[in-house]
Amino acid sequence: MSTNPSFAASKAVPLSNVSIHDPFWTYYADLARNVVIPYQWEALNDRVEGAEPSRAIRNLRIAAGLEQGEFQGFVFQDSDMYKWLEAVSYRLATHPDAKWEAVADEAIELLEAAQLPDGYLNSYYQIKNIDKRWTNLLDAHELYCAGHLIEAAVAYAAATGKRKLLDIACRFVHHIEEVFGTGTGQIRGYCGHQEIELALVKLYQATGSDRYLKLASYFIDERGADTSFFIREAEKRGYTSIWSEHPDLPHPGRKIDLSYFQAHEPVRQQKTAVGHSVRAVYMYTAMADLARLNDDKPMLDACRNLWNDMTRKQMYVTGGIGSTHHGEAFSASYDLPNDTAYAETCASVGLVFFANRMLQLEAKSEYADVLERALYNTVIAGMALDGRSYFYVNPLEVWPHACRCNPGKHHVKPVRQQWFGCSCCPPNVARLLTSLGSYIYTTAESNQTVYTHLYIGSEANLRIAGQSFKLTQTSSLPWSGAASFAVSGLETHTAFTLAFRLPAWSQGQLPTVLLNGQPYSFDKADIHNGYIRIEREWSAGDTVELAFAMPVLRLRSHAELRYNAGRLALQRGPFVYCFEQEDNGNNLASLSIAAAGEITLERNDKLLPGVITLCSEGYRDTAAVADNELYSMTNFAEPERTIIRAVPYALWGNRTPGEMSVWLRYQR
Amino acid sequence: MSTNPSFAASKAVPLSNVSIHDPFWTYYADLARNVVIPYQWEALNDRVEGAEPSRAIRNLRIAAGLEQGEFQGFVFQDSDMYKWLEAVSYRLATHPDAKWEAVADEAIELLEAAQLPDGYLNSYYQIKNIDKRWTNLLDAHELYCAGHLIEAAVAYAAATGKRKLLDIACRFVHHIEEVFGTGTGQIRGYCGHQEIELALVKLYQATGSDRYLKLASYFIDERGADTSFFIREAEKRGYTSIWSEHPDLPHPGRKIDLSYFQAHEPVRQQKTAVGHSVRAVYMYTAMADLARLNDDKPMLDACRNLWNDMTRKQMYVTGGIGSTHHGEAFSASYDLPNDTAYAETCASVGLVFFANRMLQLEAKSEYADVLERALYNTVIAGMALDGRSYFYVNPLEVWPHACRCNPGKHHVKPVRQQWFGCSCCPPNVARLLTSLGSYIYTTAESNQTVYTHLYIGSEANLRIAGQSFKLTQTSSLPWSGAASFAVSGLETHTAFTLAFRLPAWSQGQLPTVLLNGQPYSFDKADIHNGYIRIEREWSAGDTVELAFAMPVLRLRSHAELRYNAGRLALQRGPFVYCFEQEDNGNNLASLSIAAAGEITLERNDKLLPGVITLCSEGYRDTAAVADNELYSMTNFAEPERTIIRAVPYALWGNRTPGEMSVWLRYQR
Repeated sequence: MSTNPSFAASKAVPLSNVSIHDPFWTYYADLARNVVIPYQWEALNDRVEGAEPSRAIRNLRIAAGLEQGEFQGFVFQDSDMYKWLEAVSYRLATHPDAKWEAVADEAIELLEAAQLPDGYLNSYYQIKNIDKRWTNLLDAHELYCAGHLIEAAVAYAAATGKRKLLDIACRFVHHIEEVFGTGTGQIRGYCGHQEIELALVKLYQATGSDRYLKLASYFIDERGADTSFFIREAEKRGYTSIWSEHPDLPHPGRKIDLSYFQAHEPVRQQKTAVGHSVRAVYMYTAMADLARLNDDKPMLDACRNLWNDMTRKQMYVTGGIGSTHHGEAFSASYDLPNDTAYAETCASVGLVFFANRMLQLEAKSEYADVLERALYNTVIAGMALDGRSYFYVNPLEVWPHACRCNPGKHHVKPVRQQWFGCSCCPPNVARLLTSLGSYIYTTAESNQTVYTHLYIGSEANLRIAGQSFKLTQTSSLPWSGAASFAVSGLETHTAFTLAFRLPAWSQGQLPTVLLNGQPYSFDKADIHNGYIRIEREWSAGDTVELAFAMPVLRLRSHAELRYNAGRLALQRGPFVYCFEQEDNGNNLASLSIAAAGEITLERNDKLLPGVITLCSEGYRDTAAVADNELYSMTNFAEPERTIIRAVPYALWGNRTPGEMSVWLRYQR
Repeated sequence: MSTNPSFAASKAVPLSNVSIHDPFWTYYADLARNVVIPYQWEALNDRVEGAEPSRAIRNLRIAAGLEQGEFQGFVFQDSDMYKWLEAVSYRLATHPDAKWEAVADEAIELLEAAQLPDGYLNSYYQIKNIDKRWTNLLDAHELYCAGHLIEAAVAYAAATGKRKLLDIACRFVHHIEEVFGTGTGQIRGYCGHQEIELALVKLYQATGSDRYLKLASYFIDERGADTSFFIREAEKRGYTSIWSEHPDLPHPGRKIDLSYFQAHEPVRQQKTAVGHSVRAVYMYTAMADLARLNDDKPMLDACRNLWNDMTRKQMYVTGGIGSTHHGEAFSASYDLPNDTAYAETCASVGLVFFANRMLQLEAKSEYADVLERALYNTVIAGMALDGRSYFYVNPLEVWPHACRCNPGKHHVKPVRQQWFGCSCCPPNVARLLTSLGSYIYTTAESNQTVYTHLYIGSEANLRIAGQSFKLTQTSSLPWSGAASFAVSGLETHTAFTLAFRLPAWSQGQLPTVLLNGQPYSFDKADIHNGYIRIEREWSAGDTVELAFAMPVLRLRSHAELRYNAGRLALQRGPFVYCFEQEDNGNNLASLSIAAAGEITLERNDKLLPGVITLCSEGYRDTAAVADNELYSMTNFAEPERTIIRAVPYALWGNRTPGEMSVWLRYQR
């Protein structure tokens, strides 16, 4: 491993070492713990009135022989339960609680009861027809579900020290190891939906057992190496399709688009983010893990290529990815329409994972900037402020009338839903929010550096240069740019570096820095890859205070992103803002915003305590066209002056349902 | 019938009475006769290299026992052949030709050979399984195909005096009369795709036989009266679906959206244009016919309601209708996106039919304005200048990169296609272009008026007030606003009215009028429903010269049509203009056009002789964002000045393929 800090790999900090105490994030942490986890448990048990039933628990009970009935819901329904278990684990890691540990233990007993003697566990095939297991990797999500089981198991063992779920997971993995591989009689294939790869890396990290890392590497390296695998598989099972009304009959007319599954070429050769966006980012996450753990430079190059393509050509300003609902997929460079956006919540959760792993590969602020963009915008927007309803799709422009009437926009919902038939997103938000503490810092032994990636008030027990210490962060983000750090519990003076990310939203304005209350001067040499490095002997009691500029940014898109031509978006700090009907009246398209001039900040505690909203001069087109004329010749009169108000995109849709837009026309 | 001219019904002029001699339209008339009809005959015979095969003739030959094989193509493939026969008939009506009459006769013999003894004729069911005929009116288009057979038969008899095809059609209709109705043992239903209704009206008009008018009225009145018909039918046949890969198996999961078929409520109660747009306008055409022929005021009210909703809330500025490709359907009021537009060519052809029938109901210039808009823009754009390729979908904005990569835009083609698997549009354009002469005038005996709706150079043999005469029109449209009329062949001085439409594109500026070379003064009382009425005793040798103002119009959309906020479109005379990459360079989204100032006219004979293109001052955004940044803070600098050029939308896509846009951002 190089000691050049620009390539130093750094390590995540265990979740249980970090507790969050933050005026903004504590709200979400409390909500996740006190509302979201209980609510989602009710949902998984089909007890939320008016919501689409989950059937996840019911299916597992049938598989375990505890109930009679048919499998219901999507083929991957088990995974919702696993993701919820993972979220509970994180909750227990930071806030032990006997009641929820008992609920989780009960769920784990259900899984134990359902697991087959050979280790296989999947309610769909166990209920439908166990003889057909592993015959439809393309569609059936068996390894995907196994991956989520593994993630839950690793998290639960870390939180509670209990091994039962880990044993269940390992038994399943040992079965998978027998079934898959390049040996005689093994299936030389991989899952249609990537997930197990990153989970196996976690299992390797939790157990130290190489076999899991090898299996992860196998699945990644095999993918796209032989592009005929899914086609041969379809042939072999007679072209049946799980998605058909007649799943036992052949559907030879179906075209298998391998790029949807990122299986069109070996992953190391992939340079463009294509296909189903969640599959893509889950895979990229595993690729970045493997690049780091296998010291695999070509894999790192592939990760960088895919990162650059995705974040510089295919990402919404809100950190949403996957712009088309056709296949929940990437479309093409600069094709980021606002009103038909897909931008699935899960995809932004996966983007956070990928960014987090890239940061571990190489601490560059670009990764943390994107992580922050996805987290503070699309991920939080994915859940209502009461924690009980969710967006699957995160549009950048909503006209409810068109969403209701135009089938091309039926996927765009102007209001959050209680639950979904395919409910991957809600537990994904839950597991991210409950594990937020592990995204703030990484530590690199190679250059003895503690990196601060996110400015979130917290206490972290860290270890660097052979010493343990506590780093207490106090942050005024996201509403203003002050963050301070106090070192404590350090037994001896110790030389190491604290590196603080320079957020892109400061627009190159360097922060003022106080070290132990005194101005700390630094020069360009102290800045590496977007982090200010303070390298010194640290002692208990040392403090660092940072004050970042947090100007209101008028953002403009790349010229090729044509949907935003003549429009701007507002950002301040990590928050992208949006314009809602509630503040600006009907017909947001008739508004334009001043391209220059002051934008004032206003506090709006009604939305959420502390919220800063933005006010700008703007204009409203006068209704020049007579009401019964669709097109007419008119004077292009000066529009009326008006005040335009913006709220954080993260919080949209929490008041009266109505129009919303992130990008607004500007007037010079 | 009232003698109040505002409600006077007027009659179409038989096609054979009108010949076109027009600098603009003669090009299309010649093209239709000399290129389109021969080309489409080759296409129907699967002899166009590189084009999707039609299989229409082949299917009919199999049905007739002349070939062996399976039915191929869409269930309604017969109709392409019928529509082509109708077009040939119109061609023979105006330009008799032994060769094409012989080809048509041969085709008619094929139909005679294929027809069953009981009159039934449909290659799909005759090849697949005759026992299943009439069991799937929802999907199978049997009556739709019968309708096109009838239209062809009426046209061929009118053109040639030959009855064979008319006899085939009548035999089929007599079979249909037995099968459908309210009597015992009859199917009390109607076709999923309206068409036979308007065809039966033509058959009534051609034969004078009431039974056909009654059958048309039955189909219209029954529609939506019992909303369970299609559901009961599906139940009865076991929920099979023609569109399935397994057409003999049940598909109970399919939801039948009755509004797609305009069968959700009785047609007289329908106030909003909904569902599949071609079905809709074909039905409205029949409704307008029946309102007139049955003197049915409630039906007239329904027609007016549907007309107003469609043309004032759901029509593109190009006369395109049906904005969504999901179901080729209307979306909702003001939901007219440009880049995902469907605007099927057939739908605008159908809109011309409906407008034509509304004009016969009541001569109001609004109907002719819309007819002209659809005809001069979407209908002509539907065919390349060489007559050998076609648009099915007529977008108002094209970015080829996105059309290629974004599945939500796969229906939008940046270049015309040689043929289509579903090739309804090409023969629809053919039959409209070959029958254009019948859309120019109508005559009303009730108020002894000859209405001029379209300014197209032509000779028409007309009859009014008991006298026959010839009206020779010379027109400089669409490139300038002069039209003159000469009366000849009138044996005696005769009192009647010549009424000339005041086109909406003159924006209320009244034309200068010369009567026999002398200024003719008229006042408001001489203008009724958008027509200048010249009521006098006419004699052979009389002339009228009109000079309409033809300013360049900067059009703005209704404020609720949000996609066009901040944008304008150019129109001059009947032509809507568009901006093409060929004239304006790459990235049309980066352009804006001056909201005021002079727009100059330029002649471009290269596109087509006589073409007027438009030049305006405009601006090009400078590429302020660095190439590797997707979003950035920039100065909103003044854009560069540039010249922006527009060509008629009708002619777009006839040069190098590239971007196109009808609506452009404007700068004040």
